[in-house]
Order: sequence, then C-alpha cells, then structure tokens
Amino acid sequence: MTSVTRTAPGQQTKNDLLARRYATLGPHSPLFYRQPLELVSGSGVLVTDAQGKVYLDGYNNVPHVGHANRAVAEAVYQQMLTLNLHTRYLNSRVVDYAEALLGKFDGPLERLFLTNSGSEANELALRIARQHTGNTGVLVSNFSYHGNTTALAELTTGLTVREPLGAHVRALQIPDVSGIAEADVPALLKQSLIDVDAAITSLQAEGHGVSALLIDPLFSTEGLPQLPVGYLEQVAARVRAAGGLIISDEVQSGFGRTGSHMWGYQMYGLEPDLVTMGKPMGNGHPIGAVVTTADLLDEFGRHNMFFNTFAGNPVSSAAGLAVLQYMDEESLVSKAGELGVYIRERLERIAKGSPNVGSVRGRGLFFGLDIIESDGQRNPAPSLTKVLIEDMRERGVLISRVGAHDNVLKMRPPLVFAKEHADMLLEQLELSLGNLP
Amino acid sequence: MTSVTRTAPGQQTKNDLLARRYATLGPHSPLFYRQPLELVSGSGVLVTDAQGKVYLDGYNNVPHVGHANRAVAEAVYQQMLTLNLHTRYLNSRVVDYAEALLGKFDGPLERLFLTNSGSEANELALRIARQHTGNTGVLVSNFSYHGNTTALAELTTGLTVREPLGAHVRALQIPDVSGIAEADVPALLKQSLIDVDAAITSLQAEGHGVSALLIDPLFSTEGLPQLPVGYLEQVAARVRAAGGLIISDEVQSGFGRTGSHMWGYQMYGLEPDLVTMGKPMGNGHPIGAVVTTADLLDEFGRHNMFFNTFAGNPVSSAAGLAVLQYMDEESLVSKAGELGVYIRERLERIAKGSPNVGSVRGRGLFFGLDIIESDGQRNPAPSLTKVLIEDMRERGVLISRVGAHDNVLKMRPPLVFAKEHADMLLEQLELSLGNLP
Repeated sequence: MTSVTRTAPGQQTKNDLLARRYATLGPHSPLFYRQPLELVSGSGVLVTDAQGKVYLDGYNNVPHVGHANRAVAEAVYQQMLTLNLHTRYLNSRVVDYAEALLGKFDGPLERLFLTNSGSEANELALRIARQHTGNTGVLVSNFSYHGNTTALAELTTGLTVREPLGAHVRALQIPDVSGIAEADVPALLKQSLIDVDAAITSLQAEGHGVSALLIDPLFSTEGLPQLPVGYLEQVAARVRAAGGLIISDEVQSGFGRTGSHMWGYQMYGLEPDLVTMGKPMGNGHPIGAVVTTADLLDEFGRHNMFFNTFAGNPVSSAAGLAVLQYMDEESLVSKAGELGVYIRERLERIAKGSPNVGSVRGRGLFFGLDIIESDGQRNPAPSLTKVLIEDMRERGVLISRVGAHDNVLKMRPPLVFAKEHADMLLEQLELSLGNLP
Repeated sequence: MTSVTRTAPGQQTKNDLLARRYATLGPHSPLFYRQPLELVSGSGVLVTDAQGKVYLDGYNNVPHVGHANRAVAEAVYQQMLTLNLHTRYLNSRVVDYAEALLGKFDGPLERLFLTNSGSEANELALRIARQHTGNTGVLVSNFSYHGNTTALAELTTGLTVREPLGAHVRALQIPDVSGIAEADVPALLKQSLIDVDAAITSLQAEGHGVSALLIDPLFSTEGLPQLPVGYLEQVAARVRAAGGLIISDEVQSGFGRTGSHMWGYQMYGLEPDLVTMGKPMGNGHPIGAVVTTADLLDEFGRHNMFFNTFAGNPVSSAAGLAVLQYMDEESLVSKAGELGVYIRERLERIAKGSPNVGSVRGRGLFFGLDIIESDGQRNPAPSLTKVLIEDMRERGVLISRVGAHDNVLKMRPPLVFAKEHADMLLEQLELSLGNLP
C-alpha cells in the first residue's frame, strides 16, 4: 500500500496531470477540447483554470444554482456534521425534501423513489414499467442517451456502446420542423406517426409488447429538434393504447431549464406515469429520483424489496432541498424564461447575419445553433462547429456541441445566468462566427 | 407548486413523520424495528434519537470513519466552496483519489472506473465481463444481493424481486463448515465443487457460457458462512477454465472490514479481474468504483463511450480521499484486526454459555451469531433473533440480522469502534441472550 498523496492545483504541469489521469482512469474517459482544460475553481457562472484564466460557463447544467453555491455547501456541511445515514431509520430531512420536490408536481404524480443518479432513476423507471405492463418493449428516439447500465445501453442510440440495440427496442426518428415549409409539416407529422404505429406493431408481433416510451422532452442529445405541434401527444396516445407507460426523462429538461415550466413534459399536453431526474438536482451532489403515482409505487413496492443505501440520506436530501429553496428564493425559473426570450431573439438576429447558422434551437436556458456549411447546400458542418467551440474557449466562454451530426452548438449554462452573462456569450459567439473561414 | 418547508427534529411526533413519509416515499420503503427509530444526530460510534436517547451503533458500516466525521465533512465543504464538476475537464482531485485508492491494490489491478454506488459498480463490472467474454452466464451464491438494477435483480436470490432468476444465472449453494465435523468437510467440499461443475456445464449447454463469478468474499447476505479451505480458489479456477472472469464485490467486505486485509478477496488465494465497491467508501457520500486491469479497461473503453456525470467529481473524490487518509492516520485496519480477535474470543465464550447460540461467525469488525432454538434440535430461531434485536435497541445498542433464515445477528459497526464500545455491546448482548425465554 502506498501512502495517500494530495496535489495542489498548479503543483504539476498539465501534461503530468494528464499522464497521471491516463495511468489511473485510463485514456478513454472523455475530456473536452483538443488540449484538455484544467479547471481549479468556480463561482456562480464563472470558472477558473490552472493558469488563472477565467471563463464564462455557458455549458454546465449540473451546477444549477451556480458553481460553489454557498447555501448548498452550508446545507451539506451542517448535515454532515449532524448525521448521514440510510432511510431504514426515520429522519425528517428526506421527508422534508420529498414534500418539497413533490410540491413541484401536479395531479397523480405524488410519490417518489430517490436514487443516486439519472442512470439509476431510468433503470428503476423501466423496471416499474416492465413489471406493471408485463411487456418488455421500449420506444426511444433514434439519437438518445438515458444512462450507462446494461438495460440502458441496450436502448442507447446517441453514443457508442458495444451492446447491440435490444430486440425489444424501437428507435423513433423524431420529426424536426426547423427549416421545413409550413405546408409540409402535416405530411411530416403523418409519416412520423405511421412510423410510430409500425414500431408498436412490430414490438407486438415479436412478442415484446410495449412497456414504455422513454423520452427527454427537449430531445437534447438529438440536438433540440422542433417538434410538429401535437406529435408527442399523439405518440403518447398510441403508446397508452398499446398498454405502455410514459416515462419523461427530465435529467436535462427538468428543474426549470425550459424557463416556461418546472418540467419539460409540461411544454406539451403530456401526462407521464413516471418522471426521472438527475444532473441539476443536487448542484453536483449525486442525486436522482423517480416521481410516479401512488398506484405504481405501491405495485412495485409490494413485489420488490427495493432499497438504495445512499439515496435519500439526510445529506443528499439537504443538498436537494437547498437547491429547491435557492431556486424559489431567486425565482430562477421565471428569470430563465425572460432571459431565454431575450437570448432567442438575439440568436435569431445572429443567425440571419451568418451563412453558417442553419437554425436556432432550444428555449429557456438551453440553446442550440445548427452550424452548416456556407456553400448553399446547408450541409451539417461538424468541423466548423469544433472550430467554434475551441475559439470560444480562447475567448473565455465554455460551450459544447450535440446532435447526430455533431454540429449543434450546445449552450446550457447554470440557471443563475444573468443578462450580462448572456450578452458576453452572445457577443463572443457573434465574433467567433464572423471569423469562420 | 407549494413553498419549501423544513422540519426541525422533534417539531412533529414520530407518527406524524411516519405518516408524512408514507405519503411521499410510500409504505414499502424498508424501516428497521417494530416501532421505527428516528435518529437525529450522530458522533463517532454513537447516534441519538428524537427523544434524546443515545445508542451505540453496532450495525452501520457506511459511516466507516465514524458518524459526523469532521475531517470528511471539512474536505467536502472546502471542495464544494471551490469547484464541483464532472471529469470532462481535468481536475487533480479525482487523480489524487484514484492514485490513493489504487495504491491499496497490488498486481495488475491498476485502473478504475468511478461510479455513484455499489449497484452502478456491479452493473459496470458485469457489462465489462459480458463484453470481454462474449458470454452472458453469471454465477452467484444462492442468498445474495448485489444491487437494484434490472441486470442485478435478475441475479438476486437474497431478497424479494419480481423478476425471475435469469436463465443465464446459476446460484451456488455456499458450503458452510460451521457445526460440521472435521471429518465431513472433504465430502462437503467435493459435493460443492460437483455442483459448481454442474452449474457451469448447464450454462454452457444452454448457450449462455460463463461471463463471471460475482461474489461477496464474506458472503454477508448469506449470513457469514465459514467456507471449506480451498473452496473459493477451486471455484475461481473452474470459472476461469470456462472463460469467465472473477468479480469480487467488496461493498461489504472491503476497506479493512475483515481486520486482516484491505479487501475481502485477500483472505483467499483469489485474484479477481474486477473489484467493485461502494458503501463505506465516502463515509455516506454516494461513491462506488470498479477497479480492474489496464487491459480490461482499455478493451471496454475502446468499444464504449462510458461517462458518468457525478462519478469522480472533485467533491466525491475529496470525500473518498478523506476516508482513506483517516483510515491510514488512525491505522483503522490493524485496529479492527486486533479488536476483532478480542470480540471473537468473547463471542465464543458467550456462545458456550447460551443454548440459543449455534455458532459464531465473521471476523474483523463484522460478526454474526447464529441464533437457534434451545430445544436441542438446533433449528434456526428467527423470532428469537428479532426479540434480541428489539431488546438490544431498548438496551441502547443497534444491531440487525441477516441470512436465509433471518436468524444470524449482524454486528458490523463503524470501523472506529474501540474496545470500550465492544465491551458495551458484548455485555448487553450477553444480558439480552440471558433474558431469552
């Protein structure tokens, strides 16, 4: 056994740190940027690298109420100095948090399971759906990611996994009306629903049946497509008619990200049976949850001894509660809505002025710009998108990209983003677009 | 939306808290004791309930370096005030922790994946094993639990799940030499290995092949059986001969719990390919890991874009590092070894003095007493075991029970347990046993 060492930032060169990382985590653990960026501290929407350079964070949604949020840190610290145990003993913290979180839901969504991540939440939601329906078939979208377990890898279409798509999985092409003539939308919608019917029929024909539709209401990984009005509602109706449940994966779209609603599914006339969440929930503390109906929770609870050691412990609950309190006190959702409208308008103007922007996507504080070749063919331009992201880094702004063609700029900052931050991001983005070859 | 509320301990009666819990988490989330125990604070090996009564914690292994450990709380707090982000940016904390943790391993176990729980770790280990071997078959023990996901539910034998045992799973009866005449051990070993051969043959005959043996080296859920010498080594050799990998689930047996070794598998001549861990790793902070070889990590990393949002973040890493540092500074493993010998000797004496103790199990700071009827038939006595646990609660000592017959007292305190704590636990246990009807 070796003794424990601790490295202060800057104590080694970045290359040493990278070599040490490769020698422990291996070379495949993903890193952003051509030259990886070493971040050492953060505050609000700003982060600082090992050389002291400050960046505006236009990308990270996990630090939802801001980097190094003091209210969350204090809540965690005080609870750590008090007690941190599993839920087999009574403790009020988990109940306080459960009530606060369920207070953000309407209707029959009045029970929850706590987990440690979005992956654990989606795993559990699928178990519940399979057990309830007696079916195994799952409908997802055709460029999506819902987590890293075996069952989730079998329905992953948005990144590389070695497991083949499960025989019980159908991946739907999500219709996107961006850049499509108004008159052509009904035909697109009609064809998309024919595809859904075909997927359901084939699941039934092969004996899988339909257990669930699992979707991110923003279709973030897909690149934020703009859906035909009514599409999702009609998909949901078909899934229900086939006996399946609706799972809304709010890992990216939840907690007010859209600016208009607390949960992404509320953008539509969608009434999910199961709502899963993760990333922003604890401002970085590992928390996830499945919110569902009393009936589904009771059915699962009667047939399974379900327990999760860390989930719902008083410290995790304190972190989650502090995030909700901060969001309420600072009216972050309505602010995100207002700022989102402003950003969207400016992005539309930027798009008009640049031959490399195909369309503006997203809403609230989750934006995309579809980057295309300027040769008039409107082809996706992943290499230009990469140039933009690297250039924005040089300009002190962190963003990333997403989508099946890796050509949609992804801007999804902490929810404490203010107008001055938006102005800085947009100004640098406009300059960066203007400098493209 | 309702506003966020916060409840101080004692502000409500326990019945109100229980009713509020049922109305949010539902009635199935497991609780210890006939009358649930509301704990409000803890320190070291002591916890306090809502009425101010103090208990000695003889059960909880998650607060490994003690309840409300200040070093861990400070490490988490300082890092939360500094930065908490995923591993797609470089940060030294995760590398510092990875080096410290890998420093506790020898030989080819020199790489790791970080996760948020033991469930996530076992999920990942099975994915790696299945991909590497091209097989799906898994060998587990016949009263075991390795986590709460779909893939893990399909191999759960130690608690109720609705999923049937997977067609690709074989559950081995683990031989226990406790209470068996020395002369009968070779026959038991021989028969047990014949059963292993039959399980492997049947997996191969049905086309599943063998991907892995997944075991907890202490067989905690099974009730801490005492294995025939050589059994596990010979099982491992058979699994390897069939092309399978060895996964050691150290969620319960790791981090020095045995007193003799840092990892449970080191009690045997076992060389696992994958080591999974969770519970005590972050003293309650949600952390898990898979430690493996460079070859297995590289193979998996080449074929899968594997990422885990929370895992390895600087705060989780700070928590894990603080636990390892505290363990080293306080020599907790060797202390657990010494104290374990003392406890074992006293338990043997207690066992001799009580007609209700069938055998003493366990080692280090993980003990079991097999509770039996005193009528000479030596039948398991689950109802007496329950009486003992409730009585110990009245006496101010928290323990629990485990095993296929629910009749093995489970004593597995925080690793900072000292001789005075052991004396108190043993004294109360002896009194409690003496009071049995």
